Amino acid sequence: MTLEFSPHYRRIATEEAWASPRMLDVYRRELEGGHIDDPGFHSLWGYYLGSTERASTLIERIVDTDDGRLAAMDAAGVDQMVLATTAPGVQALRPEVAVPLAREINDELADAVAAHPDRYDGLTAIAPQDPDAAADEIRRGHDALGFRGVILNSHARGEYLDDLRFDPIFAAAEELDTPIYLHPTTPIPRLAEPFIEAGLDGAIYGFSVEAGLHLLRLITSGVFDRHPKLKLVVGHLGEALPFWMWRLDFMHATSVRSQRYDAIKPLELPISGYLKRNIWITTSGMPWHPAVNFVREAVGLDRLMFAWDYPYQWRPDEVETFEALDWSVDDKRRFFQMTAEDVFGLTPRAPRGA
Amino acid sequence: MTLEFSPHYRRIATEEAWASPRMLDVYRRELEGGHIDDPGFHSLWGYYLGSTERASTLIERIVDTDDGRLAAMDAAGVDQMVLATTAPGVQALRPEVAVPLAREINDELADAVAAHPDRYDGLTAIAPQDPDAAADEIRRGHDALGFRGVILNSHARGEYLDDLRFDPIFAAAEELDTPIYLHPTTPIPRLAEPFIEAGLDGAIYGFSVEAGLHLLRLITSGVFDRHPKLKLVVGHLGEALPFWMWRLDFMHATSVRSQRYDAIKPLELPISGYLKRNIWITTSGMPWHPAVNFVREAVGLDRLMFAWDYPYQWRPDEVETFEALDWSVDDKRRFFQMTAEDVFGLTPRAPRGA
Repeated sequence: MTLEFSPHYRRIATEEAWASPRMLDVYRRELEGGHIDDPGFHSLWGYYLGSTERASTLIERIVDTDDGRLAAMDAAGVDQMVLATTAPGVQALRPEVAVPLAREINDELADAVAAHPDRYDGLTAIAPQDPDAAADEIRRGHDALGFRGVILNSHARGEYLDDLRFDPIFAAAEELDTPIYLHPTTPIPRLAEPFIEAGLDGAIYGFSVEAGLHLLRLITSGVFDRHPKLKLVVGHLGEALPFWMWRLDFMHATSVRSQRYDAIKPLELPISGYLKRNIWITTSGMPWHPAVNFVREAVGLDRLMFAWDYPYQWRPDEVETFEALDWSVDDKRRFFQMTAEDVFGLTPRAPRGA
Repeated sequence: MTLEFSPHYRRIATEEAWASPRMLDVYRRELEGGHIDDPGFHSLWGYYLGSTERASTLIERIVDTDDGRLAAMDAAGVDQMVLATTAPGVQALRPEVAVPLAREINDELADAVAAHPDRYDGLTAIAPQDPDAAADEIRRGHDALGFRGVILNSHARGEYLDDLRFDPIFAAAEELDTPIYLHPTTPIPRLAEPFIEAGLDGAIYGFSVEAGLHLLRLITSGVFDRHPKLKLVVGHLGEALPFWMWRLDFMHATSVRSQRYDAIKPLELPISGYLKRNIWITTSGMPWHPAVNFVREAVGLDRLMFAWDYPYQWRPDEVETFEALDWSVDDKRRFFQMTAEDVFGLTPRAPRGA
């Protein structure tokens, strides 16, 4: 079936994947050359670069930014997409390969956005492996390419970004008032095997542990005390951190009092305070009313945005699921459109259905 | 303040920790002897066997089954406790130490329960390191000691119990119709370091990943297809699996269709089907209305039980938090008393406040 565009609001999907064919060629070359020592990457891209029908269909959809993708959006009543380089972007590659490749694929994505400016916005891909180069690319993406944020596909060659050497990345994003989207990927090599051997390293569970641990490490290490205006966007209804919110606050306070760990220090806010000040949450992969309403109650409607996860978890009827929420038109306008416009600084546009 | 016992129902707390002083002595001896190669165990028990005031207070409370514990229960209006050997029990120890120690501490716990039979029930500690001995001990605990279930403190020396060699444990519990309580501990050695280095290996987050991954591996490996009547109890509102329920179903079905993993095979039910057939959930560590109500909606009131997590996360006012839920007296009776009586097969008793 085809869902009409809404006359009341634009539906802006905020976690939508794109892959440069050039990047996929580099994946193949670096895998063949033995340059990627990351079991999660091998699991994920070994599969998607393989010869199954599902993999070929996914690749066909993910590289396309023209007719196929626009037809899917039209059929589902999705007005607009925020496009981001798919996980793990250039973040699994050798720095000397990753840094120039990030620039090349960002230029490509900027062209794709420019071809359909009323349908697409883009996020800047970075190679955190070289933090200063990543900060430069964030600035170039924002100033020269018109991108509306940064895509951080979780770890960089096995490292989480709570290490201080990555601070230039957060400093640049805060200074430009541009959000960083923390997207999952397979768990870091040090965590990967117990997930992979059980077939659980991907979106079913490993993704959520990888992104949840990464986000929690960013918070507890004090990134948001150093950068109080930094904006982070997290998918999958917050990678379960809203579910744990009360316990995170309680146990963090206990842990600070006990002085048990060097790494756990007093913070300016409880952990929930950062979830309600610095972090916005999208619904990618979680089109399920009880969880959506719970997260709305936990962190507030103003922090919640629509995402579709095209083309991975693309279900044409997913928009209908969200339309069936027992929310007012004003609430849905905030969810589908206004918060995304605010957080990403998108150009306000009239709904296509108006 | 003191909360009265309820005249309407017994408040039965279902995840309450006890430690045999004898077991703590073995912990000290085995740590000193270099027999425990488990960074999570060193982190957890290195702390609690240390000399801080918090550690000493915890040890004092956790070994006590007389005046101190009963006074805490009386002050909070908790009628009854299901006592279980604290994590990781004997599960981190060499099998030749663990198997006889399990028997000894089970005998001790049986004596403690017998001293206050209207206030305590007990769970059988096991050493899954030796699956046949563990199955024997489950039978002995049930038949000779009067225990009402089994405590499984997650991994056994780094191994998850989805491996078929552990099947005698599940077969014994199913045959006796006695539940297994899957309690968290610190993550297995192969996962531990990225949690420990950030101070996140304990109850703040690592526990939930350890128990969540373990539970999910049990489900996806087919334990509940082999043992359809097996009952599992899980704390912390289900270790976030109810939060992920929709996505787990969706991604498991996708993964089965893709034939991407040897370990992911068709199951008789969707993952949510096991959460609604084989698994009961307690509120340990999660006295927070939005999450409790969400889980009630996700899996149903009949699967939800009260737990207090004495003495770790012991908050005297926690019972009040649950009393403040906007639930009927009948619903609260089910939550505080009836489901625990049913699942653990407890002897029905009148409320102390009646």
